[in-house]
Amino acid sequence: MAEIPTKERKILVAVDEGEESAYALSWCLKNVITDNSKDTLILLYAKPPRTVYTALDGTGYLFSSDIMAAMARYGNDVADCVIEKAKRTCTDLQDVKVESRIECGDPRDVICEVVEKIGADVLVMGSHGYGILKRAFLGSVSNHCAQNVKCPVLIVKKPKTNVENK
Amino acid sequence: MAEIPTKERKILVAVDEGEESAYALSWCLKNVITDNSKDTLILLYAKPPRTVYTALDGTGYLFSSDIMAAMARYGNDVADCVIEKAKRTCTDLQDVKVESRIECGDPRDVICEVVEKIGADVLVMGSHGYGILKRAFLGSVSNHCAQNVKCPVLIVKKPKTNVENK
Repeated sequence: MAEIPTKERKILVAVDEGEESAYALSWCLKNVITDNSKDTLILLYAKPPRTVYTALDGTGYLFSSDIMAAMARYGNDVADCVIEKAKRTCTDLQDVKVESRIECGDPRDVICEVVEKIGADVLVMGSHGYGILKRAFLGSVSNHCAQNVKCPVLIVKKPKTNVENK
Repeated sequence: MAEIPTKERKILVAVDEGEESAYALSWCLKNVITDNSKDTLILLYAKPPRTVYTALDGTGYLFSSDIMAAMARYGNDVADCVIEKAKRTCTDLQDVKVESRIECGDPRDVICEVVEKIGADVLVMGSHGYGILKRAFLGSVSNHCAQNVKCPVLIVKKPKTNVENK
């Protein structure tokens, strides 16, 4: 049987704007990470690619450069905000190194690429991130990653409650 | 945000005849279970349903009752063997209660039902269990479970090595 790595672990958590990825991160902190370990926790946010903003190129309907710049700024602000929020969730960790990465691109590609690049030992993600409509077109991000990355994948679903039934 | 349960955890590990589920169990023991916790580890084996053995009914080609009985015994032996092997993997655990269940039916249904029935806190499974051919017909068991159970799902892939590249 293949040997289980006993070295320090790289735990990659994919975060986005949604509550489910926040729950996945919290669940991971409580259930996977041991605070006396030398784990490295990497928070990854996949920022929608620039092509989203320039999708209307060539149709004769172009955004002005002002609007383009404002949209790019908005994208950066969202990314910073998501990462900051995720980092705040991790403030209680003492012996765990927390890193963050913001990468531009389709979350499905970005997550798989970063797993490979950094040699992650486990990938943690919510199951329903990136919006219902987008998911319907793109397919489930978690499903794609579970099938394509080589390391173990932990898919965390936010339990439905009576208060917030979504 | 929904609260993360801090109670004792029920960790359900789906085991089968394959090396990948054995690796998934070992990975789980090293990375998810903390030995000083009061976790309960439940080893679940889904035994192929009786209909597999009587699949030729009605075609005019019937097994004798002796052969039927022998096949049923073989099925039980395999189930016992898988569970025993899994239990041996867990012998080093001291404070963790280890239970086992053998349930008859399609693994996809069995696993989802048991997760629900026992209120598992996390489901752990290999990604490629239950044989390549069977998977091609039935679809991926892990994929089905990841989409249908409500608790977090940890899908563990056995790394490919040069020695055993399968």
